[in-house]
Amino acid sequence: MATALEERIYRTGKWLYELIEGESPSIFKKEYWSGKVIEWCMKDEKFKVQMFRFIDVLPYLTRTESVVQHLNEYFCGPDGSAPPVLQWGIKGMGLMSFTSKFMAQSIAENIKNMGKLFIAAETPQEALPVLEKLRKDGLAFSVDLLGEAVVSEAEAEEYQRRYMELLDTLGEAQKSWTPLGDGSGNLDWGYAPMINVSIKPSAMYSQMRPQAFDYSVDQARERLRPILRKAVSMGAHITLDMEHYELKDMTFALFQRLKEEPEFREYPEFGIVIQSYLKSSEEDCKRILAWAEKNKMRIPIRLVKGAYWDAEVIWARQKNWPIPVFTRKAETDARFEKLAALLLQNHQRVYFACASHNIRSISFVIETAKDLKVPHSAYEFQILFGMAEPVRNALRKAGLPLRLYTPIGEMIPGMAYLIRRLLENTANESFLRLSFSEGKSIDELLKNPLELINTRESKKPAAESEATLPPFKNEPPTDWTVEANRRSFASALREVRKSMPFQAPLIIDGKKIKTEEIIESRNPNSFSEIVGVASKANGSHAQKAVEAAWKAFPSWGDTPPERRAEILIRAAEEARKKRHFLAALQVLEVGKSWSEADADVCEAIDFLEYYAREMIRLSRPRRMGDVPGEISELFYEPRGVALVVAPWNFPLAISTGMTSAALVTGNTVVYKPSSQSAITGYMMVTLFEKAGLPPGVLNYLPGPGRIIGDHLLRHPLVHMIAFTGSKEVGLHIIAQAAQTPPEAQHVKSVIAEMGGKNAIIIDSDADLDEAVVHVLHSAFGYQGQKCSACSRVIVLEENYDRFVTRLKAAAESIEIGPVEDPRFFMGAVIDEGAQKKIMEYIEHGKKDGKVLVMKTPEKGAEGGYFVPLTIFTDLPPDHRLCQEEIFGPVLVVIKARTFDEALDIANGTAFALTGGVFSRSPQNIEKAKKAFRVGNLYINRGITGAIVNRHPFGGFKLSGIGSKAGGPDYLLQFMVPRNNVENTMRRGFAPDIDFSDL
Amino acid sequence: MATALEERIYRTGKWLYELIEGESPSIFKKEYWSGKVIEWCMKDEKFKVQMFRFIDVLPYLTRTESVVQHLNEYFCGPDGSAPPVLQWGIKGMGLMSFTSKFMAQSIAENIKNMGKLFIAAETPQEALPVLEKLRKDGLAFSVDLLGEAVVSEAEAEEYQRRYMELLDTLGEAQKSWTPLGDGSGNLDWGYAPMINVSIKPSAMYSQMRPQAFDYSVDQARERLRPILRKAVSMGAHITLDMEHYELKDMTFALFQRLKEEPEFREYPEFGIVIQSYLKSSEEDCKRILAWAEKNKMRIPIRLVKGAYWDAEVIWARQKNWPIPVFTRKAETDARFEKLAALLLQNHQRVYFACASHNIRSISFVIETAKDLKVPHSAYEFQILFGMAEPVRNALRKAGLPLRLYTPIGEMIPGMAYLIRRLLENTANESFLRLSFSEGKSIDELLKNPLELINTRESKKPAAESEATLPPFKNEPPTDWTVEANRRSFASALREVRKSMPFQAPLIIDGKKIKTEEIIESRNPNSFSEIVGVASKANGSHAQKAVEAAWKAFPSWGDTPPERRAEILIRAAEEARKKRHFLAALQVLEVGKSWSEADADVCEAIDFLEYYAREMIRLSRPRRMGDVPGEISELFYEPRGVALVVAPWNFPLAISTGMTSAALVTGNTVVYKPSSQSAITGYMMVTLFEKAGLPPGVLNYLPGPGRIIGDHLLRHPLVHMIAFTGSKEVGLHIIAQAAQTPPEAQHVKSVIAEMGGKNAIIIDSDADLDEAVVHVLHSAFGYQGQKCSACSRVIVLEENYDRFVTRLKAAAESIEIGPVEDPRFFMGAVIDEGAQKKIMEYIEHGKKDGKVLVMKTPEKGAEGGYFVPLTIFTDLPPDHRLCQEEIFGPVLVVIKARTFDEALDIANGTAFALTGGVFSRSPQNIEKAKKAFRVGNLYINRGITGAIVNRHPFGGFKLSGIGSKAGGPDYLLQFMVPRNNVENTMRRGFAPDIDFSDL
Repeated sequence: MATALEERIYRTGKWLYELIEGESPSIFKKEYWSGKVIEWCMKDEKFKVQMFRFIDVLPYLTRTESVVQHLNEYFCGPDGSAPPVLQWGIKGMGLMSFTSKFMAQSIAENIKNMGKLFIAAETPQEALPVLEKLRKDGLAFSVDLLGEAVVSEAEAEEYQRRYMELLDTLGEAQKSWTPLGDGSGNLDWGYAPMINVSIKPSAMYSQMRPQAFDYSVDQARERLRPILRKAVSMGAHITLDMEHYELKDMTFALFQRLKEEPEFREYPEFGIVIQSYLKSSEEDCKRILAWAEKNKMRIPIRLVKGAYWDAEVIWARQKNWPIPVFTRKAETDARFEKLAALLLQNHQRVYFACASHNIRSISFVIETAKDLKVPHSAYEFQILFGMAEPVRNALRKAGLPLRLYTPIGEMIPGMAYLIRRLLENTANESFLRLSFSEGKSIDELLKNPLELINTRESKKPAAESEATLPPFKNEPPTDWTVEANRRSFASALREVRKSMPFQAPLIIDGKKIKTEEIIESRNPNSFSEIVGVASKANGSHAQKAVEAAWKAFPSWGDTPPERRAEILIRAAEEARKKRHFLAALQVLEVGKSWSEADADVCEAIDFLEYYAREMIRLSRPRRMGDVPGEISELFYEPRGVALVVAPWNFPLAISTGMTSAALVTGNTVVYKPSSQSAITGYMMVTLFEKAGLPPGVLNYLPGPGRIIGDHLLRHPLVHMIAFTGSKEVGLHIIAQAAQTPPEAQHVKSVIAEMGGKNAIIIDSDADLDEAVVHVLHSAFGYQGQKCSACSRVIVLEENYDRFVTRLKAAAESIEIGPVEDPRFFMGAVIDEGAQKKIMEYIEHGKKDGKVLVMKTPEKGAEGGYFVPLTIFTDLPPDHRLCQEEIFGPVLVVIKARTFDEALDIANGTAFALTGGVFSRSPQNIEKAKKAFRVGNLYINRGITGAIVNRHPFGGFKLSGIGSKAGGPDYLLQFMVPRNNVENTMRRGFAPDIDFSDL
Repeated sequence: MATALEERIYRTGKWLYELIEGESPSIFKKEYWSGKVIEWCMKDEKFKVQMFRFIDVLPYLTRTESVVQHLNEYFCGPDGSAPPVLQWGIKGMGLMSFTSKFMAQSIAENIKNMGKLFIAAETPQEALPVLEKLRKDGLAFSVDLLGEAVVSEAEAEEYQRRYMELLDTLGEAQKSWTPLGDGSGNLDWGYAPMINVSIKPSAMYSQMRPQAFDYSVDQARERLRPILRKAVSMGAHITLDMEHYELKDMTFALFQRLKEEPEFREYPEFGIVIQSYLKSSEEDCKRILAWAEKNKMRIPIRLVKGAYWDAEVIWARQKNWPIPVFTRKAETDARFEKLAALLLQNHQRVYFACASHNIRSISFVIETAKDLKVPHSAYEFQILFGMAEPVRNALRKAGLPLRLYTPIGEMIPGMAYLIRRLLENTANESFLRLSFSEGKSIDELLKNPLELINTRESKKPAAESEATLPPFKNEPPTDWTVEANRRSFASALREVRKSMPFQAPLIIDGKKIKTEEIIESRNPNSFSEIVGVASKANGSHAQKAVEAAWKAFPSWGDTPPERRAEILIRAAEEARKKRHFLAALQVLEVGKSWSEADADVCEAIDFLEYYAREMIRLSRPRRMGDVPGEISELFYEPRGVALVVAPWNFPLAISTGMTSAALVTGNTVVYKPSSQSAITGYMMVTLFEKAGLPPGVLNYLPGPGRIIGDHLLRHPLVHMIAFTGSKEVGLHIIAQAAQTPPEAQHVKSVIAEMGGKNAIIIDSDADLDEAVVHVLHSAFGYQGQKCSACSRVIVLEENYDRFVTRLKAAAESIEIGPVEDPRFFMGAVIDEGAQKKIMEYIEHGKKDGKVLVMKTPEKGAEGGYFVPLTIFTDLPPDHRLCQEEIFGPVLVVIKARTFDEALDIANGTAFALTGGVFSRSPQNIEKAKKAFRVGNLYINRGITGAIVNRHPFGGFKLSGIGSKAGGPDYLLQFMVPRNNVENTMRRGFAPDIDFSDL
């Protein structure tokens, strides 16, 4: 049967191709400007990148000068490869010359026209004639409202309003329409509503986060319900679009929960989308079918291939998650057919929309539907507006029910959509490209994708020898879209709470010592809760701890580096085993949100895995020079006893980073955790204990800095200090440690990571969809209690009002409350002292500047150290709020006239830790890379969350001394270099003369 | 004619081979132990190395346990590749088991027997029967007395005595001899004295140094004259052997000067050697012939191939000098023939000894002599005792006059000789190996070497693009054997003196400023001489200098690294142009000897060339991580204003090193030279000026440390300090710099290289020939005024007496006086303060220990700050002389019972800079490499004179903080690391997804 079916599919495909009659999609037509551009994009990857980026930024450029400027930067730089065919000849021209302006305008016009290929109109009202023309041509539509990313509840509400308006407009218009085909009433072809609208769930709620799965879904549900209700009232069809993988399960849940509501349960015109490029698509599809069966519902399902392929691959690889999409096109095509068949089989429950431009896929559906005797009223075909016109025409000629997915919206928000379409057209495996541009043979194009699936086994890495570690990979953060993970985290929180209060005695020389004086560690979000009780060391304990570490040093220092690295790897394994427990403890002990706590544990694991490998790398002596008769080797050795003084804000990660670096390099450690995170610090020590670290090598010594800290700083047996914390304490440590006591046999070395006063610059061409979200994340993630946090945002005046408006709305949408509940993005600050200090800063700000946002926590936050999320404007750049580290959720917006001025302001503090720039000007990006002098500069992304190995972290000026954590120079600081030179010539004879260069 | 000659050579060669009758030299006879060993050596390079080294150390091993121990270490380690054929099966056995002892004794016996193959006897008396047996067999001899390296005048005198005794013994014995061949009287064959002795010039004077060419030659001449006189009196033949290339010209001069003395002018039996492997051999030969012609002398010339090939290649490559020897065997063979023909042509003036085992060479001489009708009385043949017996027999059968070069001496000093012979036998291109072991065809072996010279052009490096620098090479030190160099240096000294006193104004912001207060820089060897006058800066100058540097920073810091590197390369070029001037200035300003001053300038040039390249390497950003959608780059930037505080002891090198590192990394510099070397410091600044450094980037600021130093240390605009000097000043700088002033925008970073209290361990199996010389060089070079100098020598008790005896004699042979005269190895210390301090230490030593050596300078040293060269014994390791840095020519000898104890003593100070070990125990060497914890450990060589790139230099503990100068981590300290991360994904699209690992 398969063969007979295949044959029919082939024949139908051939027939459809014949109907195309050699027509080509306008996007490929080389006689048009867009065709030429597309051709060059397909030829030249570099040009494609620049072109897509230029298209992306173009709508933001309000002045012709900016267009000229950007054209120059994108295409006329040393890297710019303007193909001669474009002939814009701007290079070398005066920027403001008439010719260059004229050229720029014409190019901008061309690109806007390209946009119009795919976007029907800017408003529903303007779209009406287009839609009516479509209907006149026998084509149905599904309207989608394009919009900027929804970063605030205000924007979500606006979106909702626009959809209501759209429905009203269409409802009014349809009165004059006649159904397509044999339709009657308001039904095209007799079974499909004339009004068909697609809605993106991400537009319905601005704070959608899988951690707060149910809450997010319910918030979106509230906003979608009125739209759906209106659709029901007018018999319109609504499809809930499917976006990124991260939103997939929330989208299904949103759909199902709404559909289960009594008023919608019976309504057959509320549908969903399945993306066949997802590896999970079959399972999802079956689950939905089973649910529909169980509820006796009929649901419309649009089957697509999927439009976010590039991004899904990148995101997954960046997070080290399994890639959720198929990486071979044929797999997606095969899955499409499999699911199409499944949906057609279930035509009693499913109204099936086959959304593809692929003639093979279409033919498969036509013939399978015939095979399964699916009634015509159970399926339709969909393609995108402006794409694949020849396919459209062929399907129409073939008399098939065809609907165009038709976006409406402005250019700016339309760009993301346009680029997705261009990507689709220019991708190497694009069906359209292969069909219409590359002229692949029809036989090839109509092949069963199963045949094309390369059957070779994916390369498995060769079995690693036990001696060598596999290459370093970052620990994947928890994927909150997986329900099991959410459950596991919630259960870890319960487990932690059950064990409270934890007990943390001192650990000196492997012995646990309980002291009478204690440190209470409390939940910042609920300060009546005692998370744990740690012992409190005094000077005499400090003395004993140093002695224990010094006693353990000779044997640990001489332990082979590979063995020391093994201990780190085992500690990482221990941490992995209880990662949710460790993260949950942080939620309760230091008030981190789920994600922040999870990221901290990942980073701790990363440090262990990375430094283990770094040590193995550095343990190989480097041969120096190349003369015969001599072997000269450079290598590194531990220093001795390291004092690690750790902060509470990354209570596991930074402690583990500094400690593991000290340990793996062969030093022994006296570890003083912050009192605020003494319990998490204790947990770190137990990880190393479980990993088999010998007693005395790591000593746990919580206690007051002014007593034990100073005792240790002056101690002649302390060889080095690794510190992360405030500038004040850091400078004190540096000054103290440099006073070499007379009995010392070395100079103490200090690594100090201190504060920051980090700025993000918003250029006049910045993508605000991205900028607003990342600024807020960078400024208010963990309540701004990160040395890397953004506390100044410097906005070019051209963009100032738009940015500030969106920022304000988005900031006001942030939910504040006890972060144990994952719906809260922001929680309490660490303690009363912090609360008081931050409130003082806010008072200063109120006095001297303007409050843009001051959002207080929701009810239920009375028992925690909460402060309002605060954004100021109109403060001078040298104001103390713009100069001093606040370490809380306080952000200042500063206006700058030029990019250079913005850089000056950004650089104008005593700190140099992190910084950010949102810009789409290659020239400004390059300028910032050079002149925005901070330890870690981030372009077009947030400025917190440095990842081990990918982003070696640390600053200079008063932000720190020493080289970057999680980077290739870091371990060197924990060691002294040595050089052994052996004269290998004896009696005139040496073993290794190399004659090759004589 | 050539062809006819070639044919005859071939025929004669064939005939000689026939006379060999399949005989093989005993060394290759596989039925013997030695034959097996030689076979394995030729098969396995690693084994050969171990074997040669074992043979080298064996005679030093007085106890069987030591032999067993060393056998184990050499052949049974993880690397040891004991071939099964040797079957000593010691591995795993108890070290002291009877079997292992038995095996060890038998192996030792075998090796000693191998020695006896090549060494006739231990004393002249014992040798007599051997020599008489030779004569009975029709063979003449030339006796050579083997001996340890002559490291003292006492040893040179002993050598002289032994030669006198040898001549007496032979004179007495010859009375009973009858001449060989048709000889009569005391003449073999009618023309050759029966007594023939070879003498090494290096045995005649212990302090032979080419810098003091004439003086060295004359000292040797004094000692050789009595021997020669005695030879004349008895009609004996004396050949002055030719040793290393370094001694070649001195050997010729010694020969010529003696020969020109009236009493020897007519004596025809005093001869010399020409080594045809030297590229200069033809020129030398012609020069000697012309000289003989001019003086109407007849001189014996022995023509050899040359026996120090490996060492010459190694030494030349280590110094980056042209290799003086041919690197292809055929070139040497061809040169041999060319010179043989030349010498035969000049038979009126030359008595020619053809010294070769190569049958082709021998046949060439036989036939060429025939061709040229050279009388038989004008030439003879020579081969080595114990080598090439088949050749010997063939020549004897052929009736040719043949003499054996016959060494006499003990095993220990004989080892160097034995290893040269083994090397010769086992070399890949060895004629004997090819003939008798590898069975190469006779036709091949008899080929004209000219045919074999590979005519391919030597690879020339591809023309370097201007953008890239050629790879780093160390600047070659001056070759003092070249007369032009000696002259040039002497003339530079005159030039410097002529310009004295130099004027050195301050240089601030490019402006030269003369102050009223001045610093006088005086010649330490003649303190009435003012070398120069430098201005003296005060606090206000310091302030101006920092401001100038800070003003110059933005532009210099942003100058592309390649441009900054260019300035260094140009400065190096400037230094090269006037290197003798710069070195001569040091001789006069700080009292360095010629070589020490020359090395300092080379090191300065090296720093410039090395750091230029290092900066280019480091200026390439490193891409971090490998996720798509992100470009993360790690790179480095300058810190700001660097204060360079330099010492006087390496007045150009260390100043240039620190300054060029600061400059090339983009910092601007305030340079404070030592007042004692302010003029040399000024010269460094002018090098940079000439190289095009912009004004203000490098400011010259001599002055008192307590005024300008402290002002600068506290200055908020000084970003970093690079210091080299004493521990006291260093710790002060570190402590001061760490007090961050409130107005500072950064923490100062400090690199400090401080003192040392460096030890050399002399193991019980150490090669004392090497150890004594290197200890003295390390301890007394530049009067011990180096932080790397050896001030403690720790001797294993087994070796103590022998070592101390030789050390004492050698130390007493060192000549002390004003180092402007190159014959003085040691000169005055830097100034009166140093003199006083050192004398105080010497007083302490005298009080608490025993004086082994106290050598005062020669007359003429009254006007300098001289102190005696002093060696103490019997001081406890914790005595202040064993703990404190003296910085003068004071050495303490400490006895240790075990190697572990020696290591403990060595490590038992607060310093950790350099250290050394002389040992031939692989196990102890490995132990020291790990446990002798110093910055720079040197095995079997001196501990001073670290070379840029080859020996990254610097210590830890109280010897310094910061990473090694001249090494790959050094420049990092002058920069801050930065990381730029660009999110390259826009609208879901990023340019660089790598699908290969999906």
